[in-house]
Amino acid sequence: MNNLNLSPLKKIEIILEGAHQEFATDLLDRAGVTGYTIVGNLSGKGRHGFHEGHLMFNEDAVLIMIIVAVPGELVEPILEGFSPFFNSHTGVVFISDIQVSRLVKFKS
Amino acid sequence: MNNLNLSPLKKIEIILEGAHQEFATDLLDRAGVTGYTIVGNLSGKGRHGFHEGHLMFNEDAVLIMIIVAVPGELVEPILEGFSPFFNSHTGVVFISDIQVSRLVKFKS
Amino acid sequence: MNNLNLSPLKKIEIILEGAHQEFATDLLDRAGVTGYTIVGNLSGKGRHGFHEGHLMFNEDAVLIMIIVAVPGELVEPILEGFSPFFNSHTGVVFISDIQVSRLVKFKS
Repeated sequence: MNNLNLSPLKKIEIILEGAHQEFATDLLDRAGVTGYTIVGNLSGKGRHGFHEGHLMFNEDAVLIMIIVAVPGELVEPILEGFSPFFNSHTGVVFISDIQVSRLVKFKS
Repeated sequence: MNNLNLSPLKKIEIILEGAHQEFATDLLDRAGVTGYTIVGNLSGKGRHGFHEGHLMFNEDAVLIMIIVAVPGELVEPILEGFSPFFNSHTGVVFISDIQVSRLVKFKS
Repeated sequence: MNNLNLSPLKKIEIILEGAHQEFATDLLDRAGVTGYTIVGNLSGKGRHGFHEGHLMFNEDAVLIMIIVAVPGELVEPILEGFSPFFNSHTGVVFISDIQVSRLVKFKS
């Protein structure tokens, strides 16, 4: 599938309370992220994965998921940027491998 | 990225009719899942992947996606737990590899 | 986990303006996709990944994410099918590896 110009990127999914959306997108902007998609009105409960009890979601809180696709080298600075925030706020961050088609290459 | 303490987990995305949310989250609780996030008000149509015709979604049904991140060894018991349910209800389950940062390690 | 009959598939997540939902699902139907799930009312901003400036989202536009799970050989025709569309419309396509349980095999 070389002709599709698929580029390996990392998808970062950040789930946090909606009240902190602007903080999160500002942080992403400063990290050099060029775009994001937000899924609103999530609900959640409890702890995620290996996360500890202080990451308990309030079931009444409106959660959002911010999705970004970034080159691998941006994962570490983004996670480090969110570190102080997640020390005192609920949330979870998922990282996974994706491929994104370089759609611009399709242009004639 | 050792300093980020990224842990490999499995992400399970369960799409099913919203009417069955409590059944699903109860099953996850009993399987030892410590948290989940729910995306509401999805719509869907038809069959997914290799699934057979009996998994047809009703286009009018309100669907939800329940997202959990679990250690690999929990995938099998969770899928087995949902097996009888999906024999008679529509839905689909996606499993993928993710990494989750052990945010607690960022604490000073 | 052989007994779970997990099948490797590709998950394609297509984010585009909701006004173009029918175009997209028609294209998927013609490509042989047997089902999809749609997450509505997303918001987004800016460019994604390696995408160029012409892929700027209008912050006021209602975005949707169409999720499909397909065999690997369907990825290329689907991306090619969307290529002309994305030359003149905003959006992004993520591709990732997933496993889907062949739930039909659980039947007695």
